[in-house]
Amino acid sequence: MKILLLNGPNLNRLGKRQPEIYGTDTLASIEKHLIVLAEKYKIELFAKQSNHEGALVDALHEAEDHDFAGVVFNPAAYTHTSIALRDAVASISIPVVEIHLSNIHARESFRHQSMIAAEAIGQIAGFGVYGYEMALNALIKYVKENDDEQN
Amino acid sequence: MKILLLNGPNLNRLGKRQPEIYGTDTLASIEKHLIVLAEKYKIELFAKQSNHEGALVDALHEAEDHDFAGVVFNPAAYTHTSIALRDAVASISIPVVEIHLSNIHARESFRHQSMIAAEAIGQIAGFGVYGYEMALNALIKYVKENDDEQN
Amino acid sequence: MKILLLNGPNLNRLGKRQPEIYGTDTLASIEKHLIVLAEKYKIELFAKQSNHEGALVDALHEAEDHDFAGVVFNPAAYTHTSIALRDAVASISIPVVEIHLSNIHARESFRHQSMIAAEAIGQIAGFGVYGYEMALNALIKYVKENDDEQN
Amino acid sequence: MKILLLNGPNLNRLGKRQPEIYGTDTLASIEKHLIVLAEKYKIELFAKQSNHEGALVDALHEAEDHDFAGVVFNPAAYTHTSIALRDAVASISIPVVEIHLSNIHARESFRHQSMIAAEAIGQIAGFGVYGYEMALNALIKYVKENDDEQN
Amino acid sequence: MKILLLNGPNLNRLGKRQPEIYGTDTLASIEKHLIVLAEKYKIELFAKQSNHEGALVDALHEAEDHDFAGVVFNPAAYTHTSIALRDAVASISIPVVEIHLSNIHARESFRHQSMIAAEAIGQIAGFGVYGYEMALNALIKYVKENDDEQN
Amino acid sequence: MKILLLNGPNLNRLGKRQPEIYGTDTLASIEKHLIVLAEKYKIELFAKQSNHEGALVDALHEAEDHDFAGVVFNPAAYTHTSIALRDAVASISIPVVEIHLSNIHARESFRHQSMIAAEAIGQIAGFGVYGYEMALNALIKYVKENDDEQN
Amino acid sequence: MKILLLNGPNLNRLGKRQPEIYGTDTLASIEKHLIVLAEKYKIELFAKQSNHEGALVDALHEAEDHDFAGVVFNPAAYTHTSIALRDAVASISIPVVEIHLSNIHARESFRHQSMIAAEAIGQIAGFGVYGYEMALNALIKYVKENDDEQN
Amino acid sequence: MKILLLNGPNLNRLGKRQPEIYGTDTLASIEKHLIVLAEKYKIELFAKQSNHEGALVDALHEAEDHDFAGVVFNPAAYTHTSIALRDAVASISIPVVEIHLSNIHARESFRHQSMIAAEAIGQIAGFGVYGYEMALNALIKYVKENDDEQN
Amino acid sequence: MKILLLNGPNLNRLGKRQPEIYGTDTLASIEKHLIVLAEKYKIELFAKQSNHEGALVDALHEAEDHDFAGVVFNPAAYTHTSIALRDAVASISIPVVEIHLSNIHARESFRHQSMIAAEAIGQIAGFGVYGYEMALNALIKYVKENDDEQN
Amino acid sequence: MKILLLNGPNLNRLGKRQPEIYGTDTLASIEKHLIVLAEKYKIELFAKQSNHEGALVDALHEAEDHDFAGVVFNPAAYTHTSIALRDAVASISIPVVEIHLSNIHARESFRHQSMIAAEAIGQIAGFGVYGYEMALNALIKYVKENDDEQN
Amino acid sequence: MKILLLNGPNLNRLGKRQPEIYGTDTLASIEKHLIVLAEKYKIELFAKQSNHEGALVDALHEAEDHDFAGVVFNPAAYTHTSIALRDAVASISIPVVEIHLSNIHARESFRHQSMIAAEAIGQIAGFGVYGYEMALNALIKYVKENDDEQN
Amino acid sequence: MKILLLNGPNLNRLGKRQPEIYGTDTLASIEKHLIVLAEKYKIELFAKQSNHEGALVDALHEAEDHDFAGVVFNPAAYTHTSIALRDAVASISIPVVEIHLSNIHARESFRHQSMIAAEAIGQIAGFGVYGYEMALNALIKYVKENDDEQN
Repeated sequence: MKILLLNGPNLNRLGKRQPEIYGTDTLASIEKHLIVLAEKYKIELFAKQSNHEGALVDALHEAEDHDFAGVVFNPAAYTHTSIALRDAVASISIPVVEIHLSNIHARESFRHQSMIAAEAIGQIAGFGVYGYEMALNALIKYVKENDDEQN
Repeated sequence: MKILLLNGPNLNRLGKRQPEIYGTDTLASIEKHLIVLAEKYKIELFAKQSNHEGALVDALHEAEDHDFAGVVFNPAAYTHTSIALRDAVASISIPVVEIHLSNIHARESFRHQSMIAAEAIGQIAGFGVYGYEMALNALIKYVKENDDEQN
Repeated sequence: MKILLLNGPNLNRLGKRQPEIYGTDTLASIEKHLIVLAEKYKIELFAKQSNHEGALVDALHEAEDHDFAGVVFNPAAYTHTSIALRDAVASISIPVVEIHLSNIHARESFRHQSMIAAEAIGQIAGFGVYGYEMALNALIKYVKENDDEQN
Repeated sequence: MKILLLNGPNLNRLGKRQPEIYGTDTLASIEKHLIVLAEKYKIELFAKQSNHEGALVDALHEAEDHDFAGVVFNPAAYTHTSIALRDAVASISIPVVEIHLSNIHARESFRHQSMIAAEAIGQIAGFGVYGYEMALNALIKYVKENDDEQN
Repeated sequence: MKILLLNGPNLNRLGKRQPEIYGTDTLASIEKHLIVLAEKYKIELFAKQSNHEGALVDALHEAEDHDFAGVVFNPAAYTHTSIALRDAVASISIPVVEIHLSNIHARESFRHQSMIAAEAIGQIAGFGVYGYEMALNALIKYVKENDDEQN
Repeated sequence: MKILLLNGPNLNRLGKRQPEIYGTDTLASIEKHLIVLAEKYKIELFAKQSNHEGALVDALHEAEDHDFAGVVFNPAAYTHTSIALRDAVASISIPVVEIHLSNIHARESFRHQSMIAAEAIGQIAGFGVYGYEMALNALIKYVKENDDEQN
Repeated sequence: MKILLLNGPNLNRLGKRQPEIYGTDTLASIEKHLIVLAEKYKIELFAKQSNHEGALVDALHEAEDHDFAGVVFNPAAYTHTSIALRDAVASISIPVVEIHLSNIHARESFRHQSMIAAEAIGQIAGFGVYGYEMALNALIKYVKENDDEQN
Repeated sequence: MKILLLNGPNLNRLGKRQPEIYGTDTLASIEKHLIVLAEKYKIELFAKQSNHEGALVDALHEAEDHDFAGVVFNPAAYTHTSIALRDAVASISIPVVEIHLSNIHARESFRHQSMIAAEAIGQIAGFGVYGYEMALNALIKYVKENDDEQN
Repeated sequence: MKILLLNGPNLNRLGKRQPEIYGTDTLASIEKHLIVLAEKYKIELFAKQSNHEGALVDALHEAEDHDFAGVVFNPAAYTHTSIALRDAVASISIPVVEIHLSNIHARESFRHQSMIAAEAIGQIAGFGVYGYEMALNALIKYVKENDDEQN
Repeated sequence: MKILLLNGPNLNRLGKRQPEIYGTDTLASIEKHLIVLAEKYKIELFAKQSNHEGALVDALHEAEDHDFAGVVFNPAAYTHTSIALRDAVASISIPVVEIHLSNIHARESFRHQSMIAAEAIGQIAGFGVYGYEMALNALIKYVKENDDEQN
Repeated sequence: MKILLLNGPNLNRLGKRQPEIYGTDTLASIEKHLIVLAEKYKIELFAKQSNHEGALVDALHEAEDHDFAGVVFNPAAYTHTSIALRDAVASISIPVVEIHLSNIHARESFRHQSMIAAEAIGQIAGFGVYGYEMALNALIKYVKENDDEQN
Repeated sequence: MKILLLNGPNLNRLGKRQPEIYGTDTLASIEKHLIVLAEKYKIELFAKQSNHEGALVDALHEAEDHDFAGVVFNPAAYTHTSIALRDAVASISIPVVEIHLSNIHARESFRHQSMIAAEAIGQIAGFGVYGYEMALNALIKYVKENDDEQN
């Protein structure tokens, strides 16, 4: 089973600036941590980050085309404005879990709404890096239950 | 270590109506499941549900007074309108994790905003009963890390 | 057949203040009038009033648990803000008729919207005490028609 | 005593389309039903329907000029936008009861507000054809009580 | 096959004023052009214009009653405010194509929204008189495909 | 020189209801007064009133077609909502003066905005019947000055 | 009888800039014209202009203190924002007529609302310099009628 | 003379958290301070706090029923959302003074509006514990003046 | 110790008009009353009123420059719109208490918000002339406590 | 003559998901169909799709640089938010026709507004794949007429 | 060549309070600095500051009357609300450059909009005192280029 | 010292279209002009333009990684909608100056707000190409002063 870990704009800067909001881990260390965690469940986790809205749309499409079982997705700044990413999530049949490092609901009001959540399974926000673990576990659980239902 | 599982209005009706939104588990079974799960971590989990906004405020206050380590809180319908619960979370020093069974961000627009999230550690929404497990784990992790920091 | 007559906040003050808005009958006299009226139809009408949002939620739940056939409900001030009561009406399978003594659509703009109406069968407003009779009749008619359909 | 039953735009289509919203009765059958009902009270009920906002304004004016005792009025789509009909109701001294077949408060948000209700005695919504009976009864009761007061 | 070409308020003034917005053709010449075009497809096109909202509602009803196959409809100023016309389109089973001479999306902001489009098949705006041809063609195509599906 | 005095919905009720807002003169007496006044200037004044938005649109069109020099127009309730009347004023080349008996800017907020004023020469509000005299005088002055300019 | 002609900010620039909006007359010539006109009615007209909101408030107060019969007032830019001028008009017992050279309802949307109109007798807009004559006449008429009523 | 000191949600937490907003005094010490102060004026002050909106409504009703002369009321979080408390203040004939410890107008925008102030005599905000003294004094003064007027 | 009593626009009209809102005392009598009251505390109270926003800004600046201990300020109509006065309060280091004679929260909605309160210590509204006494007392108390803190 | 067929985000998924909204044709088949259609008019149609907003901006620029006669453009999700694409259309001199497969005016309210339409010739929505044919025809007609005008 | 340096409300307090927003320079030192700078270009710079909106309007008028070549204008708090200053800038033919010491776009939301910018050449914000130099240079450049164009 | 000159979408079209808004210089000539200007200060200026939001995010990141001293940034259309660019500016520690050729505050209302300005040092708008010089100078000054502070 393959899962995509997809991170949006500016998350490549993690650990470099604004640690009071985003923590001190780098994206590389988070990705590595998740890959190791996934391996325990016999899952191949592929990690991708892009600052390009279109590249994130592409990545979501390709995840389905390449038979990924689901996506752990942090859309970052595009969360609040991107109808293209909302439509991209709607345009694929595999499940997507939305995750945010910071508690977006406790920040500027323009970060309280998610355009994407309506098409995702669920949303996790505010638990820092541990939120990625939660998202991965939730996604795996969701995939397995849906597989069981179909069998 | 004691943790409070606090559920808000109408959650006593779980499993009886609208299973397409809230699933088929009853609140009693969810509470039992969480108590068992908590025991594995040597944690006493106390469960309370109320349809009364004031009783939920009281319960948050008492959680701190009785040395609970934190609260897993599903404010249900009060999520979107209760400044009293927001202030109650702000008025206690123990951490609170906000959890919703359904993906509130994918429902009616008046359910997209949380008055409470700004004072909670984080928010989990859309993962059904499993969300409670996620919330419990996240809370325990948070408590332990903060304890470690202080020692 | 049992029917619940449920009245919300400040309706215990009826007949004491603001008669130009709410009329001169007391709640006790209204309840008595309705009970007598219901008896003619061989219906037991139980009356309850509370200023507590949570108690109203409880009462709606219990109405279904105790096999009431339906509820005549004046949510008063909670009409315009209570998602908890909206969810409570949605969480029970018995019909609810929303009734207001005054013409709420002709008062302050914050009284024009009802959070609850979307889950009720219908709404009656502006006919004073007679509106309760209308609501009772409409509820009985609705219950009987639905019973007939099922038989 | 004469009463006007006035129906607004598209209600001539009743029973032909969208029965899940408006039911299966035709306007003719509703009008006939109300005329028979009124006769029991020794009341002449005149029925008029128009798709023209101006014709409805005219009809309200004429009802007073021709000594009608009151109007049962379903303004349909004009409910939400017509200041002309609001002013027309205000410009006559006879009472008007506003009635809607469907529960307008549970439909699209642009149907939640009534421009006309502020000048009517009250509003009934959501009880289907039976709502017309309720409206007729409420109007008759109102007229009689006001007559009694004056004598 | 009969098709109705229905034009709303002020379109009888075409060619007389504001040619920079609406062009220089008169309504008569447009209607004639469309009738000739329709004849090539063996279609009888009937043209009607009215400045009366109610008359347009009537015309939509009658189109269905008289077995028209569909309507090419330019609601003009009523586009943006008429719930009555929206309900009228919803109350008939024949297809309606919405057409505007000018690019309403490039004019005053109160002309950007259509109350009617939600019940029409589609909307065409900005192509001048040629837009009527497009609308007619699109309607014919739609009718034929739906006929084929039913056979 | 011919001038049209055009009055909108419910103004046929003048003098019958709400004299505290609209005064005690009837429309007939106002029209007569204006006709006499106009005669002094050798002007034929034609008066028309309609409760139909479409009929008012028609009347504006016909005023130009029949070589009227201008229109004194009280659109009443349609002032605030009618894009059709706005477009009608824009669609004719003769000048229109907007007049209101009451001070619309001191009444309910939905009466503060005029859809029509943007296409009229100017607006007069709050001077009662005398406002019609002001409007007539202003229109005559405007017409004469523009005639002079062209000669 | 004394009347105050009060002009607000930037009106001292009349005739110097933006003649397409405000015309080509200077304020001095307008004031002179009005003074001559008033003399015909045996009225002393005093003219004052200020760019200072506070000075306009002062002038309104003094008009009453010095037994002026009323005020012809063009508040210019302060029309749309000044609660102080609204309160000043309310704080004096003499009548005030609001006048604007341009048709403010046809300009930028922030010029459509008047804070002051609600406390004035009426508003005149769009008739250029002639509007001042209209305002003066309307004020004199109003004062005389009220005097007659009191005698 | 009896006066009620009524405090709303979370005020039982005073002195425990957020002293930078609410100060360091406990509710018990404030209540004691006010009781002593009241005794000087020969007034019995009764203190009540509740986190329950309904209990606050009840307390206001009972204050009148038990012949209290007035209420010093800090509605805390319910200030901004509770129509039930607004109606409760309106439903009793004794005066209510609204008091806030913090300057609510200088905090989050959702704390700037009071639903209750419109039915209270006046509002005091931002003076900390001393504000209660101000409120008590203002209430006593108000009661005495109204008593004098009636004698 | 010197204190400034600063009153904004139209307050020089107190006692002359609208006594139902503002009471019957004149500004002179209020100022005199406050001066006498202040003398008891060995405080020199200087009173100033202006209808000019700029003059009020100047007065606030000068209060600090001339070593006043604080300001009792009724900004009247400027309360709701003046950023300049807000900035002026922020630009001086001495404390300002905001006071209103009427209960601004119970009047027109445009009077519910204060631009200035966010920079003042607190706000008092609705207690008539007595509110000035409350404000003076609160200011003196605030100044003394802060002095004590610094010593 | 060369024409560009430009498709925006997620349209590469056509035929794979949500056929009830977008139909069952793939983008490849649509492009092929249009190319064949164009050939009949001796037009070379080039097709491009991108999920990248910037790539769509580039494509519009290049269309002009490479002497294309015009663009048939479906901006998909970027329709509602992209000022960059609006400016790109404005920055080229060749005509652009906006086309949508679905009736965007009948979907979620955030899809009702187009940022781009104001700079396009016109908009077509709701006619499925046939809409592309309509767009192509309208563009060709527009180009030819403008060419004729210049010659 | 003469240039006016015009500063609005509270800028006379520069260097005394809130240096974290406005810096530590006094207005006198800034004015002196600019005068010296202007002299290098053979320009006479006159500096004026006022807290009075009306005085700023006067100053703008006089700048043109006294043949100033342009104005460097910091409207401070009036930036966001003053239509009078907007109209004043529009009423003079000499160029105005708008300058703010702080980055108004990064402060409270009510400081993000400028009423005046629409009539100025351009706006500079956030560069502290250096912004005045930028404004002066930009104004001189603008004046020279326009002079060259005319010669 | 290296500085980045970064230009956003459609600025590659400068000099080709809409010269009345953006002037007649091409981007190449502006870049060349700035490079020469920078050389005088011994600064290497690198110029980059992209229509891709993601590429602009990348460029900001790289500017810091490659030890640029700061960025002169014209985000063009992305100014008003891009949270990603706002976050990118926040995610780097080097200063950014926001510059616009046109006076965005005098154009369509959707161009009045900047998402990015809150994280930039300041904003310059309306001075055409000269604005770039101003921005460069301001950036150099800012960098030097901050360097001096640190030494």
